[in-house]
Amino acid sequence: MSEGQQNIPRTEIEAFGEFGLIDLLTKNIKLKNKSSIKGVGDDAAVIEKDDDNYLLVTNDLLIEGIHFDLSYAPLKHLGYKAAVVNFSDIYAMNGTPKQLVIGFSVSNRFSVEAIEEIYSGIYLACEMYGVDVVGGDTTSSPNSLYMSITVIGNVPKKEITYRSGTKEGELLCVSGDLGAAYMGLLILEREKKAYEANPNMQPDLSGHDYILERQLKPEARKDIIELLKQNKIQPTSMIDISDGLASDVLHICEQTDLGVHIYEEKLPIDLATLNAADEFDILPSIAALNGGEDYELLFTVKLEDHEKVKDLKGISVIGHMTDKSNGRYLVSNDGTHVTLKAQGWDALKKKEE
Amino acid sequence: MSEGQQNIPRTEIEAFGEFGLIDLLTKNIKLKNKSSIKGVGDDAAVIEKDDDNYLLVTNDLLIEGIHFDLSYAPLKHLGYKAAVVNFSDIYAMNGTPKQLVIGFSVSNRFSVEAIEEIYSGIYLACEMYGVDVVGGDTTSSPNSLYMSITVIGNVPKKEITYRSGTKEGELLCVSGDLGAAYMGLLILEREKKAYEANPNMQPDLSGHDYILERQLKPEARKDIIELLKQNKIQPTSMIDISDGLASDVLHICEQTDLGVHIYEEKLPIDLATLNAADEFDILPSIAALNGGEDYELLFTVKLEDHEKVKDLKGISVIGHMTDKSNGRYLVSNDGTHVTLKAQGWDALKKKEE
Repeated sequence: MSEGQQNIPRTEIEAFGEFGLIDLLTKNIKLKNKSSIKGVGDDAAVIEKDDDNYLLVTNDLLIEGIHFDLSYAPLKHLGYKAAVVNFSDIYAMNGTPKQLVIGFSVSNRFSVEAIEEIYSGIYLACEMYGVDVVGGDTTSSPNSLYMSITVIGNVPKKEITYRSGTKEGELLCVSGDLGAAYMGLLILEREKKAYEANPNMQPDLSGHDYILERQLKPEARKDIIELLKQNKIQPTSMIDISDGLASDVLHICEQTDLGVHIYEEKLPIDLATLNAADEFDILPSIAALNGGEDYELLFTVKLEDHEKVKDLKGISVIGHMTDKSNGRYLVSNDGTHVTLKAQGWDALKKKEE
Repeated sequence: MSEGQQNIPRTEIEAFGEFGLIDLLTKNIKLKNKSSIKGVGDDAAVIEKDDDNYLLVTNDLLIEGIHFDLSYAPLKHLGYKAAVVNFSDIYAMNGTPKQLVIGFSVSNRFSVEAIEEIYSGIYLACEMYGVDVVGGDTTSSPNSLYMSITVIGNVPKKEITYRSGTKEGELLCVSGDLGAAYMGLLILEREKKAYEANPNMQPDLSGHDYILERQLKPEARKDIIELLKQNKIQPTSMIDISDGLASDVLHICEQTDLGVHIYEEKLPIDLATLNAADEFDILPSIAALNGGEDYELLFTVKLEDHEKVKDLKGISVIGHMTDKSNGRYLVSNDGTHVTLKAQGWDALKKKEE
């Protein structure tokens, strides 16, 4: 009966990786409606709204066993995170999230109270960020909990920031600090293993509040967008860091056909992240480059904005855009050049499993 | 470590059912942004666009093992159906679908070719209905295939049709015919069981082309929306039939606080559906009332539009709206009154499993 699956050659997903698969599936898209301004390839799709504004649309999936583990993720935080990672995509277009639609699929392993707890996290995030829940679809699931959140946002046409606007010589900036969410994940995974080995053991999470919160209940950088506006800084390119600094800066490089130099000594890394990296014997800069889930904003500004940006609290200038021929690398503290590599799915999945 | 799940009383989802759960989860929503025109409770959310138009947003999940079975659903049809059921929601607001966002979660059970086949179905549907694919999220899944499709549409403010506009005495109409998709599902389930019992057996699908296509590759009724416009008929309420005529007419009744009388003899049922119902010893009107997945449009028109609507091809007048005190029932061919009951998840899930 499997008529759709007969006589088809079989190529494994692993052969493509996440980004290769997305390229394969989306390479032939041609936009036909004049209201479709920008499709696949940025943090959010861009749709015509009125004379002065665009509408932004983004969708993120959060799946049990892939993106989170219920043995340590508090349910309310989970709902909060599912909403916030989408708000982050809207801010990365220099926009404002306005409406949210929840696709929620749950098995009868979950009680009504557990589901309410997850929703309370979504509602809390919406309240904090001024977003309305306007719809959704709720279904049963054969096993895993699966959330698909779609967020609609608004951006004035004059202010929209794509991944693609930067030019050679411009400054690369990042908000907040990097690598903390990944170190938080490693702590949680370690304590889970210890707990599985000895269920009477209490998890040792002390001193790790900051990195645990970065993993379990991240925030989107609404404040940075406002700070940039207050200081009349218009980013020329912007993306949010979900896959890790390396992957995400490469998206900017690919869309602009530019190179980039990032300086290891400039990477903003919190003391708590450094301590945890030391505990795990991991180079902090590796956590910053490839850890992911930071939900910080990575953006470029014109060289003449250097004076304006350099002293702003919560923003670090970490490098600059170069001609493509100059390469895409991290200049490490000892002066060596480390080529930046994209981490998709695959790498991240191995880490999380 | 499961801090979010400790000490919480446990109520089973079954105690609420789909609609009860949705009510519970959404009852406290208050819309705050002035661009949020209409939230949960219709076929699509309504968002302010410009002086003359609203934007519509709808999301539907299609999940392996819940909404489809890969042992008989051809992959391309599956992609097609995932898109079309969302277009149907936009038409049910009297709007036009314009953009589509794909949330796609797949395990490595699937080859790249299989994924391409599903996407080719989504793209085909988009081409047929004039919709652009503008974005998405692609992730791995621990087991089942999950699709979350979000569709954005446009509707002139003057033409938008909610579930709630109708009044006592207005006519209830439905497009096409009902119950076919459900009978198609029963045929597929029967042949699957026979195949599992004897893998050398060829499935006996002959003579069932119509009802199988209604199940596996439904269409959205773009043509009916155009037909109504051509004939200057503005529906007063509208919903698409996804859960079944009974459930969906009750949504209209609840939003308007009205009753409804539907006449069994007026239910449009195709000959192929009647034949299959006979084979399974099922009352055809039960398939029409509770089968679901028809993706037909159920709508009301003013009494004075009776002359205009009664001879339109593909539209049947099946009853009328009444005062709530007159009840919500089907008048069967023998004159008895059968009270209409909502079929959520639960009932449907039992059928499909």
